[in-house]
Amino acid sequence: MTVVRPSERAYDEKRALRITRNFTCHAEGSVLIEMGNTKVICTASVQNSVPGFLRGKGQGWVTAEYGMLPRSTGSRMDREAARGKQSGRTQEIQRLIGRSLRAAIDLNMLGENTIYLDCDVIQADGGTRTASITGAYVALADAVASLQAKGLIEGNPLLQQVAAISVGVYQGVPVLDLDYAEDSTAETDMNVVMDDKQGVIEVQGTAEGATFSRAEMNAMMDLAEKGIAELVAAQKEALKA
Amino acid sequence: MTVVRPSERAYDEKRALRITRNFTCHAEGSVLIEMGNTKVICTASVQNSVPGFLRGKGQGWVTAEYGMLPRSTGSRMDREAARGKQSGRTQEIQRLIGRSLRAAIDLNMLGENTIYLDCDVIQADGGTRTASITGAYVALADAVASLQAKGLIEGNPLLQQVAAISVGVYQGVPVLDLDYAEDSTAETDMNVVMDDKQGVIEVQGTAEGATFSRAEMNAMMDLAEKGIAELVAAQKEALKA
Amino acid sequence: MTVVRPSERAYDEKRALRITRNFTCHAEGSVLIEMGNTKVICTASVQNSVPGFLRGKGQGWVTAEYGMLPRSTGSRMDREAARGKQSGRTQEIQRLIGRSLRAAIDLNMLGENTIYLDCDVIQADGGTRTASITGAYVALADAVASLQAKGLIEGNPLLQQVAAISVGVYQGVPVLDLDYAEDSTAETDMNVVMDDKQGVIEVQGTAEGATFSRAEMNAMMDLAEKGIAELVAAQKEALKA
Amino acid sequence: MTVVRPSERAYDEKRALRITRNFTCHAEGSVLIEMGNTKVICTASVQNSVPGFLRGKGQGWVTAEYGMLPRSTGSRMDREAARGKQSGRTQEIQRLIGRSLRAAIDLNMLGENTIYLDCDVIQADGGTRTASITGAYVALADAVASLQAKGLIEGNPLLQQVAAISVGVYQGVPVLDLDYAEDSTAETDMNVVMDDKQGVIEVQGTAEGATFSRAEMNAMMDLAEKGIAELVAAQKEALKA
Amino acid sequence: MTVVRPSERAYDEKRALRITRNFTCHAEGSVLIEMGNTKVICTASVQNSVPGFLRGKGQGWVTAEYGMLPRSTGSRMDREAARGKQSGRTQEIQRLIGRSLRAAIDLNMLGENTIYLDCDVIQADGGTRTASITGAYVALADAVASLQAKGLIEGNPLLQQVAAISVGVYQGVPVLDLDYAEDSTAETDMNVVMDDKQGVIEVQGTAEGATFSRAEMNAMMDLAEKGIAELVAAQKEALKA
Amino acid sequence: MTVVRPSERAYDEKRALRITRNFTCHAEGSVLIEMGNTKVICTASVQNSVPGFLRGKGQGWVTAEYGMLPRSTGSRMDREAARGKQSGRTQEIQRLIGRSLRAAIDLNMLGENTIYLDCDVIQADGGTRTASITGAYVALADAVASLQAKGLIEGNPLLQQVAAISVGVYQGVPVLDLDYAEDSTAETDMNVVMDDKQGVIEVQGTAEGATFSRAEMNAMMDLAEKGIAELVAAQKEALKA
Repeated sequence: MTVVRPSERAYDEKRALRITRNFTCHAEGSVLIEMGNTKVICTASVQNSVPGFLRGKGQGWVTAEYGMLPRSTGSRMDREAARGKQSGRTQEIQRLIGRSLRAAIDLNMLGENTIYLDCDVIQADGGTRTASITGAYVALADAVASLQAKGLIEGNPLLQQVAAISVGVYQGVPVLDLDYAEDSTAETDMNVVMDDKQGVIEVQGTAEGATFSRAEMNAMMDLAEKGIAELVAAQKEALKA
Repeated sequence: MTVVRPSERAYDEKRALRITRNFTCHAEGSVLIEMGNTKVICTASVQNSVPGFLRGKGQGWVTAEYGMLPRSTGSRMDREAARGKQSGRTQEIQRLIGRSLRAAIDLNMLGENTIYLDCDVIQADGGTRTASITGAYVALADAVASLQAKGLIEGNPLLQQVAAISVGVYQGVPVLDLDYAEDSTAETDMNVVMDDKQGVIEVQGTAEGATFSRAEMNAMMDLAEKGIAELVAAQKEALKA
Repeated sequence: MTVVRPSERAYDEKRALRITRNFTCHAEGSVLIEMGNTKVICTASVQNSVPGFLRGKGQGWVTAEYGMLPRSTGSRMDREAARGKQSGRTQEIQRLIGRSLRAAIDLNMLGENTIYLDCDVIQADGGTRTASITGAYVALADAVASLQAKGLIEGNPLLQQVAAISVGVYQGVPVLDLDYAEDSTAETDMNVVMDDKQGVIEVQGTAEGATFSRAEMNAMMDLAEKGIAELVAAQKEALKA
Repeated sequence: MTVVRPSERAYDEKRALRITRNFTCHAEGSVLIEMGNTKVICTASVQNSVPGFLRGKGQGWVTAEYGMLPRSTGSRMDREAARGKQSGRTQEIQRLIGRSLRAAIDLNMLGENTIYLDCDVIQADGGTRTASITGAYVALADAVASLQAKGLIEGNPLLQQVAAISVGVYQGVPVLDLDYAEDSTAETDMNVVMDDKQGVIEVQGTAEGATFSRAEMNAMMDLAEKGIAELVAAQKEALKA
Repeated sequence: MTVVRPSERAYDEKRALRITRNFTCHAEGSVLIEMGNTKVICTASVQNSVPGFLRGKGQGWVTAEYGMLPRSTGSRMDREAARGKQSGRTQEIQRLIGRSLRAAIDLNMLGENTIYLDCDVIQADGGTRTASITGAYVALADAVASLQAKGLIEGNPLLQQVAAISVGVYQGVPVLDLDYAEDSTAETDMNVVMDDKQGVIEVQGTAEGATFSRAEMNAMMDLAEKGIAELVAAQKEALKA
Repeated sequence: MTVVRPSERAYDEKRALRITRNFTCHAEGSVLIEMGNTKVICTASVQNSVPGFLRGKGQGWVTAEYGMLPRSTGSRMDREAARGKQSGRTQEIQRLIGRSLRAAIDLNMLGENTIYLDCDVIQADGGTRTASITGAYVALADAVASLQAKGLIEGNPLLQQVAAISVGVYQGVPVLDLDYAEDSTAETDMNVVMDDKQGVIEVQGTAEGATFSRAEMNAMMDLAEKGIAELVAAQKEALKA
């Protein structure tokens, strides 16, 4: 499996990861996650109420919103607030983040609280949605800890860690953690979300030109398992601090 | 692998399929696809122009839109035109249909034409997005044939057939082609799009409660291969008529 | 009164009418009405509540929404859900359908229930709004019957049948039930809604080029009376089945 | 035909009419029309271009927009600009005004000019749409005169005068020119638009409770003819000044 | 300080002012204010409730909305209701009007009532926002009087008069009350809102090309004091009538 | 002038300022400005074209957009992109930023280029609009330098530095640079924008409860001059690095 990646990384090597907790001062959880040049601010905000469809059921809710600063990318994008609507891509991503993180938590133990996960990309270089999920887990854990510290919930509603990474087929070779240079020319792009026991929470694979085979799919899943294991370890480390 | 499915189907048995061509009279391709109780009208409309970002490049475009009649479902949903926006789910689905069908066609050979694929669900019982893709392929083939018949394009831009089916884990057992009764309680739901040579075009799997294992993922992919092979045969049959 | 109509129908001859009940499976009333090549799915959905402005008044409500599939017409129209708003024409039509059908029912006897009438055109060849009204009445009657069958209302709130047809002046001659070929070139187009006793519920006549005279207006009303009497008979027949 | 109208007018008596030209200073035509307590500012604005669908065809266009000041009515209505959309009623009315006034003019003789008719109700007491049409004709005539005076068009594109009035059935009796007190309780409300030779341009009649008969419809049309003849005379008078 | 103003007014001379109360018949306060050629209808509407954020606090609210008729200006502007949103300028102005008039009233003494101030420009010639504020005060005073007359509030919640005027630097010279000809070419434009004791409520100054100095700012404030004193006297006079 | 400020700063003492250039990697100018706990990312993006209204005039344009991350504040705000529109406050602020920075530059010398200034608040503690202006100037200067370095413009279009600060009356005393604790209870809040020669570009002062006097206004202007002189020096320093 030899391929020269634009970043000169090995095929199974993810980018440098940095997780900074308490990045901003107001949120119950606030994390800056840096995955190479991709940088996302993930905040977790607690609100002592639930959406209408859950009222009175004694359970909580976790939901996510995603955004990119207009110049987080190589050329400036229109601001979604100014255009008056979120793109299909944005909605797809924030639905994915919300679903993924709800897998991390027992909503009944959360009580009638809502946790909003805001993932705002300040610099993009591929893999923003997976970085968002990995960072949002840490923010979520901090927000849960703050609820516990205030005595607002009993017990620990966190069920498992959740992390995500992208894999793909680049110049015929399965590779881990695509950056933008790879992502924009890869034959296949697959985002994988797992828990800390390698259980699959979500997998979304798309052939961008040629189709991909079951064998390639398996090779990509192997890489994802390796990468996510590393992310889970890093989350644990960050939360220890 | 024993499970009693609400429909009493075997675990690897898809629902009855019916493809009716020329369902409405104006479109270049018009198909009613019925997959059990799920019924979708798929039309392909040719327009002799391309979107702005492709103008002057000598290639064509294929795009999709998806909708559900308000009472296609068990309880009435709000009409998206009245609410003034398409839901995140709708956008996600129509982006998936468009991506999937663009894999069926050589956009350069299409010339500066756009084919709109409209998938409108008139009755829903699970699997509407996969039925839309399978039906839209037939409508697309008819639209291409009409372009050829009118001498508007040379050669055959169709590269391969494209079909899709859902698979999932229901009561611990991987099953093929979930209907609504299964879908709403399944542990995992996965939509698979393939070409007629079992090449994967798109895979989207979501754990709804428990995570799923690599072994379950493989079992689901096996079922999807079987189901899609049957769909591809049915498409071929329908297009022969 | 001699005129050669594009369809070769006599001046006072309406198109072939077909009413199919129980067209889809979820709605309390579901009707496919075909008036020549115009085909509309009319569903009636019951909801056990009323809009805010009626809450607590002990009466019910009937309202309508109208839509056209993008390729129900000769050339594809933009999807209103994608454009983010309903056109003025759509709103005008659905307000007309709602007003017309409210004339069919005693809202007090309906109790605090709302019946939504969704009229979705799957194939258009002129006269879609009048076909919608005629079909919606049958769907409404089925929905009322379902409320009675479930014991949710007492007595019969239906006051009278309601049906509608278009008339116009085509090449100087008043004609009944214009199809698209006539409608697009007619001098005058008039939509008439009546009950089963020839009482007028709504009349909307528009001169498209020349004005029309009182005499022409009377001739058109005579044709409308004849056509609606036939529609009323067909509704009765369909509901007997 | 005896009925005591809230205003004590005779059944065939319209309200006091006042037409003030040059009401505001910027528009090519600016008219304040007062029909009893209903007061509408009608302006005609000339723009030296046409909408996209008419470009290059050598003809002009006339279109209308309608609005009500929030407190033109008994209780304050939401401002449509703040709500972010025009109601169905507003759209229906402005489409009616536009259609009606296009009947007044030869669009080919207008050249590639657009005339916008803005009808803004500053005080409402029933009949705002018909007052708008009657007033807009005078503003249109002034705008045409200004085009002629500037040598921008040759000849007179005005084909005929256009005026409108409401009629209805109030307490069982057909009456002319309903004010709000009558309109809100009338059994039938009908708006009639005619030219100066009693040719019908548009008729829109709605039964609000009971249906209406052909005889009542004829009686209402007779009243409309009388009322519109008076309006046409008043327009002529105003334009002479 | 010599400058020839387009209107030939002295540098410290405001335009002719006319305040007409009871301009329309439905509102609790209705004022036409004319400041030279600028004409604004200001109505005050009382509603016996408060916005959600104030409910149950025993206090009232005053809020404002602003609009311009499409042809109030030299060339026709798009109608905001048709475009589907209020411009940034409109929102800025209505927020300013609301803030300014809330300074006139003790919201606690108003009880749980809301007063809507609608300022609709029917003819514009510069200074529409300041004329709106000056006129809205008179409408507000009338609305308060009507609440008192009906016994709905006790005591007088009006704290002070509020009026506003524009000042600027035109051809190097500070001048009072800019009309459109001046405003569109002035170096600086400043809007000043004061109470009847020369207390400043709001000041908004903008350099349009060159910056302005502290000395110019002081000169403009002097002119504003003079102008507002005259406006306050005129309001008093109008309210006496 | 003694007042104990929540931050224990002297009445004429601004907060600690830090300006970090090249904060993100894609934009032509990217600045993180920190004014105490207020943190704003200001980017300047160059686009080689101008808006429609300037096309073909040989001049450039500078415009600004402003946003706040949902949890930049003490309690989470709704995301404007999700709500589908920018608030009046947001529009007011971005209009102010754009106007202010256009004063810094000779648009003719900029050629047909547009510079977008995006000011995104990641942490808010009062004074976000003034910090945005001060930071945006530095980003603008970097973007201009990049245009010069690429030879895309000749000469230096920068006319002067632009900086802004808030002043106010807190507990009866004029103070410099209000933080949130002061801003939310201050009697008066005034934002001042000046160039590097103390010329006033914009002043916006609002009485929040009591009015303010000419003397207070002068005292606040004195403080603003002092504060802006310090900001201008810091900008100069940052740009030297």
